[in-house]
Amino acid sequence: MPLDGTNKPKVVVTRDLGPDVMPLLTKRDDIEVVLWADDSVCDRQWLLENVKGATGMVVVFSELVDAELLDAAGPSLKVVSTMSVGYEHIHVPELVKRNIRIGYTPDVLTDAVADISVMLALMAGRNARETMGIVREGLWPRSIWAPFAFCGPQLSTSGNSASRTVGFLGFGRISQATLKRLIPFGVTDCIYSSNPNSPSASKKERDEAILKQYSPQLKSLRGVDTDTVARESDVLFVLTPGGPSTRHLVNEEFLRKMKEHSVIVNAGRGTVVESDALAKALREKWIWGAGIDVVEGEPNVGKDHPLVKEPRCNILPHIGSASFETRLAMATLAVDNCLAAIGGQNMPAELDVRID
Amino acid sequence: MPLDGTNKPKVVVTRDLGPDVMPLLTKRDDIEVVLWADDSVCDRQWLLENVKGATGMVVVFSELVDAELLDAAGPSLKVVSTMSVGYEHIHVPELVKRNIRIGYTPDVLTDAVADISVMLALMAGRNARETMGIVREGLWPRSIWAPFAFCGPQLSTSGNSASRTVGFLGFGRISQATLKRLIPFGVTDCIYSSNPNSPSASKKERDEAILKQYSPQLKSLRGVDTDTVARESDVLFVLTPGGPSTRHLVNEEFLRKMKEHSVIVNAGRGTVVESDALAKALREKWIWGAGIDVVEGEPNVGKDHPLVKEPRCNILPHIGSASFETRLAMATLAVDNCLAAIGGQNMPAELDVRID
Repeated sequence: MPLDGTNKPKVVVTRDLGPDVMPLLTKRDDIEVVLWADDSVCDRQWLLENVKGATGMVVVFSELVDAELLDAAGPSLKVVSTMSVGYEHIHVPELVKRNIRIGYTPDVLTDAVADISVMLALMAGRNARETMGIVREGLWPRSIWAPFAFCGPQLSTSGNSASRTVGFLGFGRISQATLKRLIPFGVTDCIYSSNPNSPSASKKERDEAILKQYSPQLKSLRGVDTDTVARESDVLFVLTPGGPSTRHLVNEEFLRKMKEHSVIVNAGRGTVVESDALAKALREKWIWGAGIDVVEGEPNVGKDHPLVKEPRCNILPHIGSASFETRLAMATLAVDNCLAAIGGQNMPAELDVRID
Repeated sequence: MPLDGTNKPKVVVTRDLGPDVMPLLTKRDDIEVVLWADDSVCDRQWLLENVKGATGMVVVFSELVDAELLDAAGPSLKVVSTMSVGYEHIHVPELVKRNIRIGYTPDVLTDAVADISVMLALMAGRNARETMGIVREGLWPRSIWAPFAFCGPQLSTSGNSASRTVGFLGFGRISQATLKRLIPFGVTDCIYSSNPNSPSASKKERDEAILKQYSPQLKSLRGVDTDTVARESDVLFVLTPGGPSTRHLVNEEFLRKMKEHSVIVNAGRGTVVESDALAKALREKWIWGAGIDVVEGEPNVGKDHPLVKEPRCNILPHIGSASFETRLAMATLAVDNCLAAIGGQNMPAELDVRID
């Protein structure tokens, strides 16, 4: 395509990506940038109108990229680049049909989400929500110290408690980064249950390498069934993709198998954990506590949501990737993906639609 | 002393140490146990009466062990064993004068406090109090996602942010255990300021060993002045003993030197940090956030305390050692100390009064 200034490719950007990233687009004189500049969800009607004749789009997960939007854009559209690792909002087959490339932002949020996962595991065990509430509500002066008051299960091993098993539902990059952070807490055993379709030979090799790396602290690393993950985990991390195959994997049956002093962390997808079952498990003390960054049906999670009412449930409003460093990396990658595709080059992170 | 059953040594215990630990005393038929069994602070009058003729006392930090109490006990008293690492409640010279041994519980709480320190560092950076508040107060459905909403500084290094300096005021066991946990988060540099009276030759050797252990991840480990700790730390941990020499070490002058995106964690002693100065630093955004387990004047910290009013201040009601595993170890050690002293044996953890 001739980039001659009279027929510049148009890029529609559905959110302001900030002063560090927007110039990557706006300082290019060979591109026309159309920005939804308001600090709100991009208006659908505005988008349908402005996308006409666009070559590229940089979107966030609040934009539904469906046939209607693609038809509105027309045949000029070469790429849809989303500033997210998930792409549930993109109707992939519709883009494949039209030969439109898809950019996304995997990998760069691994560290931020692993940090949140460790934080939630500690908060769930050590009763952060309840104890912070005591201070916030002015009850500290009246609270009476007792040898075991406010106690919870300790994440770290110690003299009288020499082993810890961490479990993972899903054992991808974020799970592995979380495990890495937990090794100096004295974790001795790791179990996981993951996609049964991945080739088991490559898993075996990977697991041997991980075990060797963390030896002698880590004594075992095993791929197991979900039943075993439920029964044996002291700390369970839900870090599996969403979608129908993992929906309500953590339900009442699963939670009833867990240890009384175990904690559950969900920094993956809200749909994997059945909210009512988790609320019941906390209320009836089948498990010790929970730390969750995602909830099924979010953000429509109000004060009267069963999990919001449970004092042992530490809930964050999906901030797993919300660090300056990571969001900057995600926004930069989203722009780089878009520009590369417009230039007909290899995209730094293009979705491989064959596996979808 | 003849343990003949008619003249059993009496042990006064000022709080119920629970079903796992109390039998270590009550199942001994050569000892008389007198217990303040109520789940409240031991009544002073009750204690003054019951301590008469006691050989040992197992206390917690709410009991003031002063000349009055020791005189009430009389010359039979051989040992005061406290279930705490601090001994501000014990008038040590009075015990030395009377040749009464002192037991305490160091070391066993190292892991629990290091866990809380890491948790508070993560919470302070990732805005845990503010973001949990959004969910608790039912505001999540109305919150608008934006590329940098809810963002805070990331504890872990990542591609676009490759170095992290952690600083410590005090570099004893708990600081070292905290550093150990932070290594896989990608910490590259560690600075500390500690007691200038410790011999620097032994520090040099220790530091070389630590640096070697965490190499190549950790690039540097240096003892520096407090000014440098203030200026260079991305995450600052206050883990120094209390007392006059460290009182208000973190004051307005110190806080003004800190980085805008830095966070401060206090899991040591409340007196080290001047509360009004920290509240001002948070309000005026000299630093990013704080995570504190101790506050000067605790537990008299009500709703209107300046730190309780700061949304960037994550406050816990002094639960650093409050894990089941650790409190069990502390209670067991307190009893073991008492029994050893009564039997005239080496105590597992006797306070060396020469250094006090």
